[in-house]
Amino acid sequence: MTIEFYTAPKSVGLASHVALLENKLDFDLRVLDTTKQQQTSSEYKKINPKARVPSMIIEGTVLTETPAILVYIAQMAPDGMLALPADPLEFAQIQSFNSYLCSTVHVAHAHRHRGKRWVDDEHALKALTANVPKTMALCMKMIEDHFFHGPWVLGDTFSICDCYLFAITEWFESDGVDISHYPKLERYRDTMLQRDSVQSAFSALEGSI
Amino acid sequence: MTIEFYTAPKSVGLASHVALLENKLDFDLRVLDTTKQQQTSSEYKKINPKARVPSMIIEGTVLTETPAILVYIAQMAPDGMLALPADPLEFAQIQSFNSYLCSTVHVAHAHRHRGKRWVDDEHALKALTANVPKTMALCMKMIEDHFFHGPWVLGDTFSICDCYLFAITEWFESDGVDISHYPKLERYRDTMLQRDSVQSAFSALEGSI
Repeated sequence: MTIEFYTAPKSVGLASHVALLENKLDFDLRVLDTTKQQQTSSEYKKINPKARVPSMIIEGTVLTETPAILVYIAQMAPDGMLALPADPLEFAQIQSFNSYLCSTVHVAHAHRHRGKRWVDDEHALKALTANVPKTMALCMKMIEDHFFHGPWVLGDTFSICDCYLFAITEWFESDGVDISHYPKLERYRDTMLQRDSVQSAFSALEGSI
Repeated sequence: MTIEFYTAPKSVGLASHVALLENKLDFDLRVLDTTKQQQTSSEYKKINPKARVPSMIIEGTVLTETPAILVYIAQMAPDGMLALPADPLEFAQIQSFNSYLCSTVHVAHAHRHRGKRWVDDEHALKALTANVPKTMALCMKMIEDHFFHGPWVLGDTFSICDCYLFAITEWFESDGVDISHYPKLERYRDTMLQRDSVQSAFSALEGSI
């Protein structure tokens, strides 16, 4: 099977990139330079009309959206590091966590530099940017207090949720989130940073564009 | 199995409500009055600390987030109306569509009256509200042009994507979206409105609070 994987440095593509490496799947890495708006090129929009990363092309079929890509990667290696639980309600909890990340946490972050998705007014854009440290802190407190079991998101089992949350923790410094306020998340991020998959993803992105 | 289902009128809870009815699952309906902020009560926040609807309690286990709930409902009736495809890549396309609805389309809508999730400034809130018809129109054009196959979202097969998209079309009038610009979506909504599940959900909500 041929997988082409489109991502960009500092993007949420890191979640799927780490998951591909955890599951030891073969893929061709395609790195876009979003500082040059390559994700909005007419060529890329033929692949993903939403003009976002990540995208995957699997034997000619395009797949987009991180929660969908992560579950697909897990299913491609059913005995791999990211095996999904057979129980529907356990699987649903993984989906619920990932859905919170995509619909609330990633969205909170996007208001820092991507406010033009929702408004053009310059004053409003500045107000949105200024508020990001507060909204991201609320999200992280929610996760630390209610949804992160430790040492991994789900408890003792490493999962696609860990790949996804890690990608978001990479935005903490620029989003003004002080990770020391969230001791469970701080230990988790330190452990994630030592994983081979994470180091390999960073190496592959570095100097790729 | 006992399912308690928490929703509210005019909320995205309609997607899961319709799915429960399509799959003929038994459930106890719990309707919150969000005009009285019942979703922020300390009692409800013990169920869902995110203070949002929908939530489900399945034999004591809480499940939140629409994409997760919809897949769970589908899995609870594997031979039902909302049966999921066995092929991982086909399942992933369902997930991708639902993920776009939760992370982009629902978020665009939420900027109309829920802007305080991202900013406090009154001028900015007004600017966000004013922009909603434009951002929702972009989302609907994206769906009409690229992701809606017709007569249902996936083509000939009715799915959880139809339950979800329908709930969002219910916001069109208040969001300033003119559905006549999207002929495929217009036919789809007219057909959805005639389904027993949709009529039953509306009846159950009407006068419930």
